[in-house]
Amino acid sequence: MATAGGTDGVDDSARRREADAPSSPVARFSADEALPLDAGVSIGPWQIAYQSYGTLNSDKSNAILLCHALTGDQHAANENPVTGKPGWWTTLVGPGKPVDTDRFFVLCANVLGGCMGTTGPATTDPATGLPYALDLPLVTVGDMVRAQARLIDRLGIGTLFAVVGGSMGGMQVLDWASRYPDRVFAAVPIATGARHSSQNIAFHEVGRQAIMADPDWRGGRYIAEGLRPRKGLAVARMAAHITYMSEQALHRKFGRNLQDRRQISFGFDADFQIESYLRHQGMSFVDRFDANSYLYVTRAMDYFDLAADHGGVLAKAFAGSRTRFCVVSFTSDWLFPTRESRTVVHALNAAAANVSFVEVDTDRGHDAFLLDEPELFRTVRGFLTGAAHARGIAPPAGAT
Amino acid sequence: MATAGGTDGVDDSARRREADAPSSPVARFSADEALPLDAGVSIGPWQIAYQSYGTLNSDKSNAILLCHALTGDQHAANENPVTGKPGWWTTLVGPGKPVDTDRFFVLCANVLGGCMGTTGPATTDPATGLPYALDLPLVTVGDMVRAQARLIDRLGIGTLFAVVGGSMGGMQVLDWASRYPDRVFAAVPIATGARHSSQNIAFHEVGRQAIMADPDWRGGRYIAEGLRPRKGLAVARMAAHITYMSEQALHRKFGRNLQDRRQISFGFDADFQIESYLRHQGMSFVDRFDANSYLYVTRAMDYFDLAADHGGVLAKAFAGSRTRFCVVSFTSDWLFPTRESRTVVHALNAAAANVSFVEVDTDRGHDAFLLDEPELFRTVRGFLTGAAHARGIAPPAGAT
Repeated sequence: MATAGGTDGVDDSARRREADAPSSPVARFSADEALPLDAGVSIGPWQIAYQSYGTLNSDKSNAILLCHALTGDQHAANENPVTGKPGWWTTLVGPGKPVDTDRFFVLCANVLGGCMGTTGPATTDPATGLPYALDLPLVTVGDMVRAQARLIDRLGIGTLFAVVGGSMGGMQVLDWASRYPDRVFAAVPIATGARHSSQNIAFHEVGRQAIMADPDWRGGRYIAEGLRPRKGLAVARMAAHITYMSEQALHRKFGRNLQDRRQISFGFDADFQIESYLRHQGMSFVDRFDANSYLYVTRAMDYFDLAADHGGVLAKAFAGSRTRFCVVSFTSDWLFPTRESRTVVHALNAAAANVSFVEVDTDRGHDAFLLDEPELFRTVRGFLTGAAHARGIAPPAGAT
Repeated sequence: MATAGGTDGVDDSARRREADAPSSPVARFSADEALPLDAGVSIGPWQIAYQSYGTLNSDKSNAILLCHALTGDQHAANENPVTGKPGWWTTLVGPGKPVDTDRFFVLCANVLGGCMGTTGPATTDPATGLPYALDLPLVTVGDMVRAQARLIDRLGIGTLFAVVGGSMGGMQVLDWASRYPDRVFAAVPIATGARHSSQNIAFHEVGRQAIMADPDWRGGRYIAEGLRPRKGLAVARMAAHITYMSEQALHRKFGRNLQDRRQISFGFDADFQIESYLRHQGMSFVDRFDANSYLYVTRAMDYFDLAADHGGVLAKAFAGSRTRFCVVSFTSDWLFPTRESRTVVHALNAAAANVSFVEVDTDRGHDAFLLDEPELFRTVRGFLTGAAHARGIAPPAGAT
């Protein structure tokens, strides 16, 4: 087993600890409660780590499940135990915020395959005492959703008031609404699509190859050998990070500005601010994320194709649905462009589902779902307020 | 020195040989004919390798210089001595083709910093007997152009009939027209821009980090140590290759089609055709290109900013120009989108230059300049024919 910190001189004990014994609540399932996976095998024992905010009401009608994106975790609205930074969706989630924790009971679980306490490749395999690494079966978005459903069962919640998520989180939202139509009153898929495109698969493949090219990856067994593929994972993050921003935002934010100098250096240092920024993104990511989890979760996204699971007809995924949908896209998102959301909306229309669709005008690209975007906030607040009224959820105390 | 082939089991003797003793003609310049570089130092002795096609006419008025892109070389229209494949611009260049070698004397030189016989980091440093590696000063697009001008001088050509190139080749075209306005009768910059954007710098930086993260890069001294950073260079190429294609073309060509299988494998093999294609692109690139050259030439592109060299006003770069310009862009090119060409056209208009502008409608992205694009061919043929008439260059024998 790896000692905390490994041999690369970085203290990653906090990150390592979270994989098996997270600082958030964990629902543990025994071998008798094994989870069947799309890969055709089951895994058990297994566990799912989660956070919650707000209070579940007496009829358990006010639960919202947040689904996180590729590199997110359950710490949506609290300080992250590894980075010490605010949660990734504190913009949207909290008391009085669009996802109002004064009114709703908000849950967020680390995805299957993740590295923050839900079973993933960094989890210790009870059969060997070593991390699973690549011995963990591949997982799918559907597997992630089934794991979340088992958590919801454990918490005694029948129907979720809403499932909300962006990017891969949005894929989970769509899968939830399709797989468990009677358990989802409202669904908010943001900046997402019903399948991963060829270009998106291509970018993921570059990232995986960068990780697997790092000699410290060791065929995936780096934790047991006290190593980490830091450089490979940083390159993967850098490539991915470009796809999260728009060309316009990059131009506005960085342009060709130089970093801490007045002239180019005629060398390979980070002359330009964009280079310095990307390198920082790569290095800080390495400190908080597990490389094998990156492989697993990117693969799950690549495999996602909701229409293919329904004979190639996306509308069939939502046949007879009574869920209320609010689909959101961003004008400058080129990773999940608006046309991907439109495809979802057309399928929902064809299924005669209840759907509203908002394309938010912003130059901030895919990452806009994590940022301070007033039109996104107004949309989510308005939609959830209306749906809560329809479901008879009491307004927060003191609200008029 | 490296033995041919190195230790990675690949016979790269042909590629290694081309760096010092190319199979094409070479113009050699002594230490007394050193080339001053933008980095503030001179290099000498130095050499520039080139190919030519067609016949220079008696008044030397029919010479066309082709400028190659990032990973191109001088073998535009002949079999490549390393790969054995046809030249990279055989679509456009040859007898009876738009760049008609029956009428024009066509030159193409390997860029400074390249790896096919022009001085670059793989060239043997006469002072040490070892490859320069990172001891070669950084080069710029301007340096590349000045080196080409020295070749043109050597060949006794005063004014080029035309300078033609795509992508980084187009940057050289713009630099030629700005630097030597009296030596360029006509200029055809294709799929290019007057500066490298923040997003483009970002993608290059990812590629460089992938190469430098490869332990076989050895701080650039891999050739002397008999090694090559194959994996890092392959990842760099994969990331770059995505930017050369459009999302539409990827979707049309690959979609989510599986490679040699009917079902996903639930593993990290190349399940999807796009993955298999990208891996092939990465591996075949490694066989023909030098990793340090990739660092140098990407850096030259990043540094290119023609307006910055003229007080921030691009029009000043073309003040008083009598060159005829034909600017070409492609609708689906997101690496050098049409707006970059439009910026060039606006500057040329402001300088009262003679310019025509064609945006070719295609879904094939940046790579369209290398492909069978009839509208591109018609544009180049028509423009060169008109310009040749204006310059009094005789039509090919037998033409009516």
